[in-house]
Amino acid sequence: MQIHEFQKMMCQLYFKRDSERGINGTFNWLVDEAEELGEELRKGANREATEKEFADVIAWLASLANIMGIDLEKAAISKYNFKCPKCQNSPCKCTF
Amino acid sequence: MQIHEFQKMMCQLYFKRDSERGINGTFNWLVDEAEELGEELRKGANREATEKEFADVIAWLASLANIMGIDLEKAAISKYNFKCPKCQNSPCKCTF
Repeated sequence: MQIHEFQKMMCQLYFKRDSERGINGTFNWLVDEAEELGEELRKGANREATEKEFADVIAWLASLANIMGIDLEKAAISKYNFKCPKCQNSPCKCTF
Repeated sequence: MQIHEFQKMMCQLYFKRDSERGINGTFNWLVDEAEELGEELRKGANREATEKEFADVIAWLASLANIMGIDLEKAAISKYNFKCPKCQNSPCKCTF
């Protein structure tokens, strides 16, 4: 599935609620989902639960992009277009 | 671009460094990128900078999935497959 398609699917499912919640509330939820992912990674016990937390983070990121009117796929490819945006190499050769 | 293709591109660019940094270090970097996105959203001044922060969050999420050996696209579609995973409706009709 294309990043754009996933974002559109999230729009169909959640845009009304996301837009009512607003940017700050949706961002805070994204942070909560990232924290839950971190907890699963620390536990390291349940692969299926970890996969679901990865799903939640990309889902809330797409929701946030929807209410910002930002095309997540376009943004991602614009910055990371088969080369490191800092050193311009593939693979990255940054020394820091 | 498919989510899977984006993840593969990130693997080609950064897998060596990501795997050396490890899960905790890469997760911490994801959190830093989410915080930077939050700062741009609060400033609300620079659309291009905000798009770049969205790009960074999905990039680091893909990097983290790479070192976990998790297919981000598969995880996302498994949970969000054109219906809300909680209420099973599209659009979501959850009441909480």
